[in-house]
Amino acid sequence: MKISTLSIGDELICGQLTDTNAGTIASTLLAEGLLIQRHITVGDNESDIIGALSDLGRVSDAVIVTGGLGPTADDMTSRAAARATGRRLVINDEARNHVRLMSGKLENLILCPLSDKQAMIPTKSVLIPNPRGTACGFHLMHNGCFMFFMPGVPSEMIVMLHDTVLPFLLERVPHKRVIRTESLNLFGPCEAEVDELLLGIVNPASGLTLGICVTFPWMKVTLRAEADSHDAATDLLLPAVNVVRERLKDYCFSSGNVCMDDAVSELFRDRCLTVSLAESCSGGLIAKRLTDIAGSSRYFLESVVTYSNDAKMRLLGIPSGLLNGSGAVSSECASAMAKGIRQASGSDLGLAVTGIAGPDGGSEDKPVGTVFISLAAADGCWTKRFHFNGNRDDIRTLTAWTALDWLRRYLLKRE
Amino acid sequence: MKISTLSIGDELICGQLTDTNAGTIASTLLAEGLLIQRHITVGDNESDIIGALSDLGRVSDAVIVTGGLGPTADDMTSRAAARATGRRLVINDEARNHVRLMSGKLENLILCPLSDKQAMIPTKSVLIPNPRGTACGFHLMHNGCFMFFMPGVPSEMIVMLHDTVLPFLLERVPHKRVIRTESLNLFGPCEAEVDELLLGIVNPASGLTLGICVTFPWMKVTLRAEADSHDAATDLLLPAVNVVRERLKDYCFSSGNVCMDDAVSELFRDRCLTVSLAESCSGGLIAKRLTDIAGSSRYFLESVVTYSNDAKMRLLGIPSGLLNGSGAVSSECASAMAKGIRQASGSDLGLAVTGIAGPDGGSEDKPVGTVFISLAAADGCWTKRFHFNGNRDDIRTLTAWTALDWLRRYLLKRE
Repeated sequence: MKISTLSIGDELICGQLTDTNAGTIASTLLAEGLLIQRHITVGDNESDIIGALSDLGRVSDAVIVTGGLGPTADDMTSRAAARATGRRLVINDEARNHVRLMSGKLENLILCPLSDKQAMIPTKSVLIPNPRGTACGFHLMHNGCFMFFMPGVPSEMIVMLHDTVLPFLLERVPHKRVIRTESLNLFGPCEAEVDELLLGIVNPASGLTLGICVTFPWMKVTLRAEADSHDAATDLLLPAVNVVRERLKDYCFSSGNVCMDDAVSELFRDRCLTVSLAESCSGGLIAKRLTDIAGSSRYFLESVVTYSNDAKMRLLGIPSGLLNGSGAVSSECASAMAKGIRQASGSDLGLAVTGIAGPDGGSEDKPVGTVFISLAAADGCWTKRFHFNGNRDDIRTLTAWTALDWLRRYLLKRE
Repeated sequence: MKISTLSIGDELICGQLTDTNAGTIASTLLAEGLLIQRHITVGDNESDIIGALSDLGRVSDAVIVTGGLGPTADDMTSRAAARATGRRLVINDEARNHVRLMSGKLENLILCPLSDKQAMIPTKSVLIPNPRGTACGFHLMHNGCFMFFMPGVPSEMIVMLHDTVLPFLLERVPHKRVIRTESLNLFGPCEAEVDELLLGIVNPASGLTLGICVTFPWMKVTLRAEADSHDAATDLLLPAVNVVRERLKDYCFSSGNVCMDDAVSELFRDRCLTVSLAESCSGGLIAKRLTDIAGSSRYFLESVVTYSNDAKMRLLGIPSGLLNGSGAVSSECASAMAKGIRQASGSDLGLAVTGIAGPDGGSEDKPVGTVFISLAAADGCWTKRFHFNGNRDDIRTLTAWTALDWLRRYLLKRE
């Protein structure tokens, strides 16, 4: 089945807003073995929408459209859909009831003036319910192509995709080839090293392919198996996944959509250990990431962001002699910070980072990008100097990732 | 001039990686008055690339293509470009020299095996220099359409776009209409309120249009003026911008690409005031955002993330009676935290947040989303209870934005 997507919106085509719907739809469908062949974006312009619908309708069995179903004048997807498919635009009673019902229910933040515009749907269409917003979606069949129209608001679109569009498509896929994928997420090695580690693992002729996707600062290795049945695809996939996992060893921090923060949080929960942080150049970023996870209060005790020397002395007990001697950005200071926060908070682990994120503040000895990370625990204190490349944002991101990876590696060894 | 973009890559069409190039190209061109009409994404598949190039070539005067120029077998843009335009693929000596030169220069992280593949370019093409990577770009003319091919790596693409593609296009735009835009960024009001505030400001017939783009949790209002000359566009734009700014008042926190963090930082620098934070439910997010900005050490003193009650007592001097009485999530506790961190750190301002980010921990009295924000200064202490809707991530984001907006509004009044 050839499937395409079409995103509609001036803010998308002008680059004011990054389109995430196309990617969400693609990855959702891929998980069910359905591949997107072509994606188009156009602005809120009737003839551009009609042109894109016609082109995609010609080469696709199904087109999934998002955007342009709102109440304002610049939303013109319904009218364009009617014109492109030779239908009339009429008020749909069911859609009108929905708009009125939802307008009453929704909070201030997204309340729009009551309007029948959102109830205007092309004839011979079937509504796609939208439990989250006023805009109903609809689908229709034109010249042998299924066309689905959904609002562009991601949280509304995703529910409608899962509830209506995906089941509808899956029911109609004939002789489906089963595609199964598995992804492993890595932090640490460079791409060339991963390439070499994974040399010769897959044989495309067998239906197994391997892709490496670099997403600063981590990488995703995806294995994809295509076969006639679920079992055959699994038989192809799983042994290869095991080989990849074995070769990548500790570099692999998770699989699927589990991010580094989740991986670390899971280990903390399993090990029943607690942690406190002392951050300087990362400015709260590590605490932010650890507490992104629900339930983090069970292992995360506290964090101090000690930018000033005064704060380092008062909150972490760093002697002023150390700050004047080795300096705030030093191995000695990092260790003292890690031990200091561990002792002050009574946590099992104390993690500290201090460094120069730039763009100013570097010296010949300690250029911008110099970062010290220290981990203090009952069984020792480890400190290491790093040099990270990039701008301020890159350096802070690499600092946080490396610090979280240290926690992960320490926890892994404490089964 | 009708311009289209084409992004090529399996990782893009599968939704593994979000395409940022299309948006970067669109906004870069828009700033020069050039609009993108259609964008297409396809995977690394020769016939899909050829199909997209043909379709876009038919409806466009220029097509800007990114991706698929790498050294590995799955990069097939050059071959597809040659086939789509009836050219042969030959080794280009200049490109070969470039590949060899760059391969020697580049760092480990992006070193690829030396290969002549990246030097294979369609005949009758002109190279687009790439000062940042091995892949040369090229451009050619086919059936009256300019086609530009660049690598997908954003940092390489952007330089090539600015150095070669954009000047090339601007030289060839006949009777250019000048487009000038100005954006104002808002936090606080709902879309309907903004709609009402801005009623009747623009008259599309005059060449002035207004767009509202909602990007949780803020909004961007963009005014766009189109005229025959730069001066005429300015004359149309500026008075309208002033009216919009006047009507939006304090809701407007910045213009253009200045984010909330930058706006707050700028005010801190101007006012020569310092701030310290005590965060509970926001878990370091506010500190992270304030210290994202280079030079923040001049006004940001320290932050404590006090998840545990013990930390609240020890670091902020909150009496245990208050925690047992009103509780950690209360107006009293928020005020005590703000005053506590202000006093402990000696900063001019103390900002504190405490609340329930969920998904657990809510009660009938204080459901998930209940957040108290408090600001302590020399001239008073203000505390307010909020109820934020959404998931954990939404609630934390709204908490941080609202807290930063409080700082902004306080600083605005202290000229």
